[in-house]
Amino acid sequence: MTPDQVVATGSQIVLANTYHLALQPGSDVVKRLGGLHSFMNMPLPMLTDSGGFQVFSLPKTVNENGVTFKWEKSGTPFTMTPESSVAIQEELGADIIMAFDECVPYPCDRSYAEQALERTHRWERRCLEARTRDDQWLFGIVQGSAFEDLRQQSARELVSMDFPGYAIGGLSVGEGLEVMDRVLGWTAHLLPKHKPRYLMGVGLPEDLWCGVEHGIDMFDCVIPTRHARGGLLYTFQGRLRVTKARYRRDRLPLDTTCPCYTCQNFSRAYLNHLFAAEEVTGTTLACIHNITFLMRLMDMIRTSIREDRFVEAKADFFARYGTSYGPNKRNAVGLGHEEVTGARPGGGARPGGHRSNQNAKRPAGKRTGNKKSGSANKGGGRSGRGGRGGGRR
Amino acid sequence: MTPDQVVATGSQIVLANTYHLALQPGSDVVKRLGGLHSFMNMPLPMLTDSGGFQVFSLPKTVNENGVTFKWEKSGTPFTMTPESSVAIQEELGADIIMAFDECVPYPCDRSYAEQALERTHRWERRCLEARTRDDQWLFGIVQGSAFEDLRQQSARELVSMDFPGYAIGGLSVGEGLEVMDRVLGWTAHLLPKHKPRYLMGVGLPEDLWCGVEHGIDMFDCVIPTRHARGGLLYTFQGRLRVTKARYRRDRLPLDTTCPCYTCQNFSRAYLNHLFAAEEVTGTTLACIHNITFLMRLMDMIRTSIREDRFVEAKADFFARYGTSYGPNKRNAVGLGHEEVTGARPGGGARPGGHRSNQNAKRPAGKRTGNKKSGSANKGGGRSGRGGRGGGRR
Repeated sequence: MTPDQVVATGSQIVLANTYHLALQPGSDVVKRLGGLHSFMNMPLPMLTDSGGFQVFSLPKTVNENGVTFKWEKSGTPFTMTPESSVAIQEELGADIIMAFDECVPYPCDRSYAEQALERTHRWERRCLEARTRDDQWLFGIVQGSAFEDLRQQSARELVSMDFPGYAIGGLSVGEGLEVMDRVLGWTAHLLPKHKPRYLMGVGLPEDLWCGVEHGIDMFDCVIPTRHARGGLLYTFQGRLRVTKARYRRDRLPLDTTCPCYTCQNFSRAYLNHLFAAEEVTGTTLACIHNITFLMRLMDMIRTSIREDRFVEAKADFFARYGTSYGPNKRNAVGLGHEEVTGARPGGGARPGGHRSNQNAKRPAGKRTGNKKSGSANKGGGRSGRGGRGGGRR
Repeated sequence: MTPDQVVATGSQIVLANTYHLALQPGSDVVKRLGGLHSFMNMPLPMLTDSGGFQVFSLPKTVNENGVTFKWEKSGTPFTMTPESSVAIQEELGADIIMAFDECVPYPCDRSYAEQALERTHRWERRCLEARTRDDQWLFGIVQGSAFEDLRQQSARELVSMDFPGYAIGGLSVGEGLEVMDRVLGWTAHLLPKHKPRYLMGVGLPEDLWCGVEHGIDMFDCVIPTRHARGGLLYTFQGRLRVTKARYRRDRLPLDTTCPCYTCQNFSRAYLNHLFAAEEVTGTTLACIHNITFLMRLMDMIRTSIREDRFVEAKADFFARYGTSYGPNKRNAVGLGHEEVTGARPGGGARPGGHRSNQNAKRPAGKRTGNKKSGSANKGGGRSGRGGRGGGRR
């Protein structure tokens, strides 16, 4: 997607990745070219992740100083420290930069989670002290794995450090939706209402409702564009796998209500053809649509809050979209039906639609039949673990 | 590239391919969806090649009726005849459709060339008779390999059939620039001045001058976008291989005089980064630029004709761009220098720039060191032979 295509989706901020950019082209190059906005010609606000999430999926050694690993291409050893992460992010020049944290896998035993959390807090304090630019916001990242007291301790500790914004990290690493819901319940309300709250690496359309319900303001995730590249498109009537034979002659747009360039100009049949012919344009058009969908969904959620009908709007969304949680019991085991047909553009959830999700990164949790989730992971994040800014596109 | 990106390049017509579209999604599907313009949402005039060029690169049997081959994916045998080619092209619904011809390889012995040419003329007559739509122009295709009398016989025969436009086929199949120049010299002037003359599968920037000099009005070629996808960009100062390390920190656009989206918004350094990171956006931006360049070049050529200074304009172009022919002797053995630097945006041909072309499809002819030409072929046309509408993008 070109920057003008990204802007046209209605996106409000764009994430770039410290690890990837430090590797290629190098933060010095980005700085020389005027910083990320200028380098990418990106008029939207930008945020850089600290590299913590990516680095932790590489072979590495961790000590109090930082994390030592080898750069992917050259094999050159490098120690990423809170100070170097901040220095790189200052060179990159995003509007929001993230503290360097230690991500732990899920599940994680308590003693390691505790030790990593304390180190993360010391590292985050060092990030605050390492800053030399006052035109960037440094966000703190709450960790603590799936332990209630650790999460709460982390939130309180970081609030005392007075960051201009807070992220909740360590999720979307295989913990499942229920754990995520619980962690958000323990944590989010402890973060100041007047500062942005950012849920890292999340999420899918259904996750946005859950996040906002807990008070989250910002999200990032590679999965919606990964889905798009695989031909899995989001509509308010559920997911639509446009590569299916049933769409080969379908004149309708992906979503008859969608204002995006893709829906305004192309049929499902044309997208089906582009995917079958392996035309890159198909993936571009699909990404434009999925991102636009998420922005429209966030608009819908914001409007429902302003009009004091969030609960009804959420129920209404899930009744049509279907997901593993929400009121539509028929979809209780799946992550949404992929059974939208041209014949039923305004239709409700489809009775036959509660199969398990075929291509999502989302972890198994209680669900079964999720074998493909694992393999779908491989295409994206550095480790294939999660959605936190790991993808290239 | 999306249709709006294609339109923005200034292109006047878009080619689609009968063989590829008959295979996927099927001309019946395209017809059902309202024809190619509607299916692709393409506002520009369109042209379909007859499939002749693609079919002849497959294992096949040829007889008077047509060509029997197996479809690529399914292995289903199919006989493409002049009648079926026209029927498919009528379903596809382009503005200009092409006669079904027998393409012969180069070199080709005279008796086979003669036999194939006579059959081609009979087939082209059958195409004229097979038409049922009067809102499409059917162009005849001149063949005759590299034999002067056969080419002239072909041109005269087709002119007598009174097609609304004429193509010159059987070039860009490995015959080399000199042969092409000779064939055009024998043929083009025999075609009516008041009807479009179309040189199929050609060309590179340097080929356009040669073609126009012989009176050609229309061109198509997959190579400029194939070059773009490989990071080889055209500028009026010569070719620029943007993947080279020297562009890693180069703030300049590809071409400081170019109005395209790519040059207006991105540096060589950013493109270098996109290619290094294997970002698909890099190939999109590169294709936008190369196509825009060709349209600007055609504009320049048209203006020079109107102002009666074609010869001077051509000499001026080659002095800066460099190529294997034209007045710049320093580039006599290469197909253009790839040595543009940021330091010399307005500079002339570079003395060190006459190395052989590394990535072009262009045949060897007298040139040496062209080993890579063959492999570059593989990515595009069905057979890897040539540029005539064979590419997918």
